[in-house]
Amino acid sequence: MPFGSDNQTGCSPQVLQALIEANVGHSHGYGQDDWTARAVAALRDVFETDLEAYFVATGTAANGLALASLVQPWQQVLCHAQSHIATDESTAPEGFTGGARVQAIACDEPKLTAHALRTHLARAGRDHPHNPQPGAVSIAQATESGLVYSPDEVAALAECARANAMALHMDGARFANAVAAQGCSPAQLSWRAGVDILTLGASKNGCWAAEAILVFRKERVAGLEHRRKRSGHLLAKGRLLGAQMLGWLRDGHWLELARHANRQATQLARRLDEVPGVSLVWPVQANELFLLMPRALALRLQAGGAEFYEWYASALPAGLNLRADQMFVRLVCSFATTDEQIEAFIGQAVQRPA
Amino acid sequence: MPFGSDNQTGCSPQVLQALIEANVGHSHGYGQDDWTARAVAALRDVFETDLEAYFVATGTAANGLALASLVQPWQQVLCHAQSHIATDESTAPEGFTGGARVQAIACDEPKLTAHALRTHLARAGRDHPHNPQPGAVSIAQATESGLVYSPDEVAALAECARANAMALHMDGARFANAVAAQGCSPAQLSWRAGVDILTLGASKNGCWAAEAILVFRKERVAGLEHRRKRSGHLLAKGRLLGAQMLGWLRDGHWLELARHANRQATQLARRLDEVPGVSLVWPVQANELFLLMPRALALRLQAGGAEFYEWYASALPAGLNLRADQMFVRLVCSFATTDEQIEAFIGQAVQRPA
Amino acid sequence: MPFGSDNQTGCSPQVLQALIEANVGHSHGYGQDDWTARAVAALRDVFETDLEAYFVATGTAANGLALASLVQPWQQVLCHAQSHIATDESTAPEGFTGGARVQAIACDEPKLTAHALRTHLARAGRDHPHNPQPGAVSIAQATESGLVYSPDEVAALAECARANAMALHMDGARFANAVAAQGCSPAQLSWRAGVDILTLGASKNGCWAAEAILVFRKERVAGLEHRRKRSGHLLAKGRLLGAQMLGWLRDGHWLELARHANRQATQLARRLDEVPGVSLVWPVQANELFLLMPRALALRLQAGGAEFYEWYASALPAGLNLRADQMFVRLVCSFATTDEQIEAFIGQAVQRPA
Amino acid sequence: MPFGSDNQTGCSPQVLQALIEANVGHSHGYGQDDWTARAVAALRDVFETDLEAYFVATGTAANGLALASLVQPWQQVLCHAQSHIATDESTAPEGFTGGARVQAIACDEPKLTAHALRTHLARAGRDHPHNPQPGAVSIAQATESGLVYSPDEVAALAECARANAMALHMDGARFANAVAAQGCSPAQLSWRAGVDILTLGASKNGCWAAEAILVFRKERVAGLEHRRKRSGHLLAKGRLLGAQMLGWLRDGHWLELARHANRQATQLARRLDEVPGVSLVWPVQANELFLLMPRALALRLQAGGAEFYEWYASALPAGLNLRADQMFVRLVCSFATTDEQIEAFIGQAVQRPA
Repeated sequence: MPFGSDNQTGCSPQVLQALIEANVGHSHGYGQDDWTARAVAALRDVFETDLEAYFVATGTAANGLALASLVQPWQQVLCHAQSHIATDESTAPEGFTGGARVQAIACDEPKLTAHALRTHLARAGRDHPHNPQPGAVSIAQATESGLVYSPDEVAALAECARANAMALHMDGARFANAVAAQGCSPAQLSWRAGVDILTLGASKNGCWAAEAILVFRKERVAGLEHRRKRSGHLLAKGRLLGAQMLGWLRDGHWLELARHANRQATQLARRLDEVPGVSLVWPVQANELFLLMPRALALRLQAGGAEFYEWYASALPAGLNLRADQMFVRLVCSFATTDEQIEAFIGQAVQRPA
Repeated sequence: MPFGSDNQTGCSPQVLQALIEANVGHSHGYGQDDWTARAVAALRDVFETDLEAYFVATGTAANGLALASLVQPWQQVLCHAQSHIATDESTAPEGFTGGARVQAIACDEPKLTAHALRTHLARAGRDHPHNPQPGAVSIAQATESGLVYSPDEVAALAECARANAMALHMDGARFANAVAAQGCSPAQLSWRAGVDILTLGASKNGCWAAEAILVFRKERVAGLEHRRKRSGHLLAKGRLLGAQMLGWLRDGHWLELARHANRQATQLARRLDEVPGVSLVWPVQANELFLLMPRALALRLQAGGAEFYEWYASALPAGLNLRADQMFVRLVCSFATTDEQIEAFIGQAVQRPA
Repeated sequence: MPFGSDNQTGCSPQVLQALIEANVGHSHGYGQDDWTARAVAALRDVFETDLEAYFVATGTAANGLALASLVQPWQQVLCHAQSHIATDESTAPEGFTGGARVQAIACDEPKLTAHALRTHLARAGRDHPHNPQPGAVSIAQATESGLVYSPDEVAALAECARANAMALHMDGARFANAVAAQGCSPAQLSWRAGVDILTLGASKNGCWAAEAILVFRKERVAGLEHRRKRSGHLLAKGRLLGAQMLGWLRDGHWLELARHANRQATQLARRLDEVPGVSLVWPVQANELFLLMPRALALRLQAGGAEFYEWYASALPAGLNLRADQMFVRLVCSFATTDEQIEAFIGQAVQRPA
Repeated sequence: MPFGSDNQTGCSPQVLQALIEANVGHSHGYGQDDWTARAVAALRDVFETDLEAYFVATGTAANGLALASLVQPWQQVLCHAQSHIATDESTAPEGFTGGARVQAIACDEPKLTAHALRTHLARAGRDHPHNPQPGAVSIAQATESGLVYSPDEVAALAECARANAMALHMDGARFANAVAAQGCSPAQLSWRAGVDILTLGASKNGCWAAEAILVFRKERVAGLEHRRKRSGHLLAKGRLLGAQMLGWLRDGHWLELARHANRQATQLARRLDEVPGVSLVWPVQANELFLLMPRALALRLQAGGAEFYEWYASALPAGLNLRADQMFVRLVCSFATTDEQIEAFIGQAVQRPA
């Protein structure tokens, strides 16, 4: 019962097949291969725009390179306090940007709002050159709370960013889930809403290790190729990334995988209704569930083979106090989550301890 | 009426005299001179311990080098959200440390408390290597709110830091004011309370440009000399710093200057009692005043030649709402603040506008 | 006729098979999986020692992380002027190490010698903290000239490094080829000869993207996990790397692949004897050939579909002058180079132009 | 007999007087003061152009900030192997630039020549993004061999730099000596010859600690203020730097000081003609002498109180072999070098040992 993360699987059969096919013949190295070129073309098609795409193997690298393209070392990246770049990527943002500031925004809500952003900016110092200067806003789609930003919410943030001479970065580690959840187009949820650079995650949703840095404003691209190389993220055999991306995008496979993961999460949430003492902290909008659960139950489930993580108390909404006999946990469904896994989990959860 | 900052003066006559005397003869460069050696000896005497001292010309450099000696690039510096290193030194902490995280602690009080620190640590993730790791706690003495930490408060923070494998840094830009305010010994307020490295500021309190990085735990020193050199902070003519420090420390001059600045701040606060609509945000403990003031009065005073800064709204206590007709301002007294300047300020403040 | 680089292929069938097998089931992420554990065990077996191993996807990352583990930001990495880290990894060494110096050693020979190293150290300044301090020696095995270091040569360099308080790093992008060429054991050519960290390359010799940082002196390991994470090189689905490594090492596959590549290079060199005007710049010891070739012939071959690169003139031995009608080129054989490709190349080369 | 360096003195009486005068009254901090403004105006006057000037306290900082303004982290700074930035500033260039490469140019001559530069560029790889990219050329005026570049030589280097899309930086730690030596105008030797940024050193030639970064191409300025702040080089009491600069520039004082230093060096060289076994390695063009000297004599002089440094053997011209009984030494004259010091030195040198 692997609900620990959507990175506990291998790749989808279709992606594997693309890799097997791509293992034939020779090609130029360092991304100058045919698979990479076709994957970029596929992304332009899916996003309906003439974007630039750079492939790397991890989300941390994709985010770091994107941010380094958007801010100077004396600037800030403004983000939600619970965003992945603030909590789970070590100090990669500082490393990639040459020492920019990661500035968490105090925010009562699980998503960053244009209101919170404006309030922060109004109250913070802007003295030049003393205060770290606002450089970019970064939001995660879906968020670290499993919620999604609507195109309008993104546009409101983009407008606020633009009005303050900031760029907008979207950490799309679960962008596919967010698109699948909202039924909008990839373009609507990214560049049409004002996103400058999107890091499109494929690793969590069907690939092995493939992320795309999608640059919608080409004037931001300067240096990205160099930064990718000097950070060690230019793969010699670029086809490994290009082929994964191709297999993932082909025939809407990526959205099909995301829809499955979302459906399973919704189904799991529905079934958890039956389990006494379990409550959702936030509504399930994509493929993640955040729960308060009796601690004894959580420990019993884990002992029984269920995999999931206790989550950071700092992520809990203000005012929601965790009782000592409760555990705050995260469950994640993936493209590979089966009905049987859900049923097994629920079966154990509702079981009376002997 | 220069209440803008304690850096708006030159140096004290005694410091100037020391510089004039030090301008004679030749010596080795790069801090291998007699004045530097004597200044280090004087610091050992004043702090009653066998410390190591490194002189630089700015507080930002002193703080940056101290933090770089205490944390690894994948660690965090935990500090109050309003601390100088978080708000007023650009992204110098990131630059000096090679990209460590500056982590502001949510704190309802104007000082960092051991309680707030423990709460933060209990709620934050400590996953290795994903979450930025706690590396050091940094506090300012006096704080950016003009308050002082007592030796006991410092000791409580040091204990919490130690219990979590963190070092304790004290940004002592106004350490002299804090010592003068509390009547304790420099040792009591630093290493005896558990401070690992103190950056002792002299520039704001009588020197032109002289700060000392005082290392109390020598095992932390590795690399400090190299870091100072490669950041461009090793002065060729080291006597410039050594002589200032010598003149500043001689015969308790440094504390005399600080006592004067503190007294003038207290006096200014007392006289402001008479001015309608003006209220202190925090008690005056050192040489700074933080006030709410009718905006019209503030503008009239500035137009009349009074110098002071509107302060960041983000620094205001939670719950204290700034009215549109108010201004949140900071006034600073220095070693050079005269009774006449205070009287002139008050005179203008109580004056009825024509 | 792909002689451009040993990165122009996919992966070997055995490696692909390992990947296909590893795509089943779920596991913990971030290298906490069974494939990774087994690959580390396999490396300990192959190297006959209790090493620590860290997997990443590129050689530039492996070298950068290794060097960052060995030098401080105020130190130098001493290397041959033609080494890959000096010429072909952008400024990755500076980026990973936080700004250490890459110091090319003037060297008349295509390999770094202990004599050249000692001469350099004797003539260079060692003033502390002014001169960049020697921190590590880095050598490539095989070298960028296609030559191999013998165990004795490595040991002589290690001794010189040790005597000057430096560590020894081996960039083993083609370590398999060097072992295969010399018939010695992996241990003999690495830790037994005094290497502190070896970056073992698998990507060029049968994998898709897999490199291992092998740490032989564990006291050097501090921080490597953190550095890998903050540079974005910790793969979420670690099995991708672990499985490649497993497949590559199984049953001596890695050395079989390297022996094939070396054999083909030797064979190609032998056949080129017949081609007028072509001469080897250095003897063929591993899988690379460096040639002087009539420029007209080189262009004709490239036009006919042969892939190879013109090489940097700066790499030529002192005294060897390149005539205007010559081209200095590099040909590389890989695990996948066929006899037919060699024959086709020779066939075109000896063909009289019409 | 202080011939160790031109940083072994204090400041000139005129500079000290300017500091004493500047110690009166209050002003804005952080370079927003009147002395700084007047010093910038004086520099515009002296250089006959509308430059931007940024003051810092050390030459290493000035060079580092200048280079950071000129190169990206994936670029190279090309310089003579014996330049100060390559040998004597630790790894400050890497630190300030965020990890650019310092690339020493193999050069038989003690100055960098356009020919050597072109040869280097022709032979080096330019593959994008693999090879570190040429970003700037940096030359020292006077050089680390005590020689000066003529305006024509500078112009030839500037032309070569421009033709290769590189900027030209001049490390003018001894720019005053170079101007004094050649009798040309500051403009002729800097921007008119194609220099983009000059770091004008005053510390070695009469000030205590004052260097100016002079930006002649304003489009290069972006970020310099921020970089100065985040590296800790923005002095709170900016008047300290502004006043030194003002006193130094007033009435041609700076060139008078440099002429004196140069004259004393020439005089010392002339007198050394008399000393058997002593020979100049390079002609004396500014204020430094590089000598081969019997080792016994050198040791006797040092024992007798003469201060000078043994110099790096790596700086010796190719082909000049240092005999075991010789020492390669540097003697430096300063604005404060007296005839008596020279006579005392010569007196000891010609004295027969007992």
